[in-house]
Amino acid sequence: MSTQGQVIKCRAAVAWEAGKPLGKCANGPKGYVTNLSLHCRYITVVAIEQVEVAPPKKNEVRIKILYSGVCHTDAYTLSGSDPEGVFPSILGHEGGGIVESVGEGVTDVAVGDHVIPLYTAECKKCKFCLSGKTNLCQSVRATQGRGLMPDETSRFTCKGKTIYHYMGCSTFSEYTAQGAASNKAGRIIAVDTNPGKEKIAREFGCTDFVNPKDHDKPIQEVLVNMTDGGLDYTFDCTGNVDVMRAALEACHKGWGESTIIGVAAAGKEISTRPFQLVTGRVWRGSAFGGVKGKTDMPGLVKDYVDGKLKVDQFVTHTFNLDQINDAFEAMHSGSCIRAVLTVQPE
Amino acid sequence: MSTQGQVIKCRAAVAWEAGKPLGKCANGPKGYVTNLSLHCRYITVVAIEQVEVAPPKKNEVRIKILYSGVCHTDAYTLSGSDPEGVFPSILGHEGGGIVESVGEGVTDVAVGDHVIPLYTAECKKCKFCLSGKTNLCQSVRATQGRGLMPDETSRFTCKGKTIYHYMGCSTFSEYTAQGAASNKAGRIIAVDTNPGKEKIAREFGCTDFVNPKDHDKPIQEVLVNMTDGGLDYTFDCTGNVDVMRAALEACHKGWGESTIIGVAAAGKEISTRPFQLVTGRVWRGSAFGGVKGKTDMPGLVKDYVDGKLKVDQFVTHTFNLDQINDAFEAMHSGSCIRAVLTVQPE
Repeated sequence: MSTQGQVIKCRAAVAWEAGKPLGKCANGPKGYVTNLSLHCRYITVVAIEQVEVAPPKKNEVRIKILYSGVCHTDAYTLSGSDPEGVFPSILGHEGGGIVESVGEGVTDVAVGDHVIPLYTAECKKCKFCLSGKTNLCQSVRATQGRGLMPDETSRFTCKGKTIYHYMGCSTFSEYTAQGAASNKAGRIIAVDTNPGKEKIAREFGCTDFVNPKDHDKPIQEVLVNMTDGGLDYTFDCTGNVDVMRAALEACHKGWGESTIIGVAAAGKEISTRPFQLVTGRVWRGSAFGGVKGKTDMPGLVKDYVDGKLKVDQFVTHTFNLDQINDAFEAMHSGSCIRAVLTVQPE
Repeated sequence: MSTQGQVIKCRAAVAWEAGKPLGKCANGPKGYVTNLSLHCRYITVVAIEQVEVAPPKKNEVRIKILYSGVCHTDAYTLSGSDPEGVFPSILGHEGGGIVESVGEGVTDVAVGDHVIPLYTAECKKCKFCLSGKTNLCQSVRATQGRGLMPDETSRFTCKGKTIYHYMGCSTFSEYTAQGAASNKAGRIIAVDTNPGKEKIAREFGCTDFVNPKDHDKPIQEVLVNMTDGGLDYTFDCTGNVDVMRAALEACHKGWGESTIIGVAAAGKEISTRPFQLVTGRVWRGSAFGGVKGKTDMPGLVKDYVDGKLKVDQFVTHTFNLDQINDAFEAMHSGSCIRAVLTVQPE
């Protein structure tokens, strides 16, 4: 029976509210309460609920989600640190699915198409899309940041309450160390305080692994000494502003470039001596890997299908939707690169 | 009578020691003590002395200085804020002169050549020169920073004491607002708290002048509003880390680039929210305008001779060497773009 134009009911992981600071590690009831920080500073409720999903309006699409990754961006918003975090909202927008129904005016996709929802739009009409210089399409930015569709309303309700959308998705920020390998960098150094990450880093093409805990000197000094003056390119994927500074200062004088990928907590600032930049280092950032959704994603999917882009290797843990809190725990365990939820059978 | 190979005696402005913090404005004796900060926090002694100059050693040149600019970099070092400041030293390396004698092995220049001493070398042999990515030749960097010639000694003495060399020179960092005009930027906005600078800024090609004191909002917000989202390129020439931050944050999301040119005081740090970079702004710096001394300078001199590069217009004040302290005062007065000393008749 077609569900086109109908409100449908389904299950979803609802984050009813932001995490509460605890002060010390808490072990909440399994499956309902989970620790969402490596330092166990929060408990956060993520509950599996039955929700209603309104039909797609003009230029909108309703997607049946099959699988979804669980990522640190979800955890970041859940912790309450995300200044744009709105609650209650539905997690899990790092996913893939099938178009269930389409609204008026939709011509790009049809019912039954396999699609990947993306957090950065590409309207091809705004000043940003037309600039040729950035992937940061601004067409839906203002409403998306408030958890709403472009018409300023939500399509989700649960127990009579409006549930907000959550479009955050950091899938592609995880592809960086791989990006360097495919661009044939001579030497790729992975830096992590977790020695368990070394094996995985090397599988993805890293030539060196450095654990800052193994050194007395600041990590930037260690890296500069390892590389005859510093690195040509560095990337921070942590969201830690001290690591961002170290990544810049590990760059080679005269030409080294450091790119910030990680999302910092609200209110946190990066800093360095301006001399670092005056002597030729460049500090930049990247959102969504600089990828334009409609233009670049098909090529990345083709690279994966052709075996050129490693994706399966990232998936170290799988769970079903009911186990979403276990997935968060796995993510923070250190042994996990990416946990993927089977949201519903294909 | 040839002075080749001889110690010669001449007059020089000797900075015997770094400035002393005063706490409030002081009016020292004319010609000997001067205020070296816009906020009058220092007094600094610059004395005209007779000094001895040793003959040039291997690969060295002795230059008869005819004219010298007085610049904020000199004042910065004099104030005691420069971590590389060494005393006693001789000021005035933003100059031009004639080769008086040459040491063994010198083939690039001959006695009688008109030359411009530069603070950034270009050896064409070091890793930096060979990189093709930077002008920051490192061949003499280590000794230069300590006020010495490459053989770790000084050529200057005065009253039996060693006087250190001072190679700082920021001439070309002052050419930026002009660089934008020659590159045909559509709109060039000069920002200065001194309204007296507006006329000069417009003569050099600026299309707009903004005084932050005329606005209640932060200057970056004013500039973003003036420019439909921000500037494509901004340059800080102040050395003030708050201005550096404002310059970055005045950049357009997605592609704006901010370049730090000013030299900050020791220990000062720049900071911003990493979100500024993640959303596509780039933060970089420039030393010596990115110019390679031997490679690029002849072209700049030719541009000046051909009337394409404005230089004379920068010289708003002229003094003789005895008036060096008046030149510093003029520099801080706000009406001065560049004060030039006639060191000795041509």
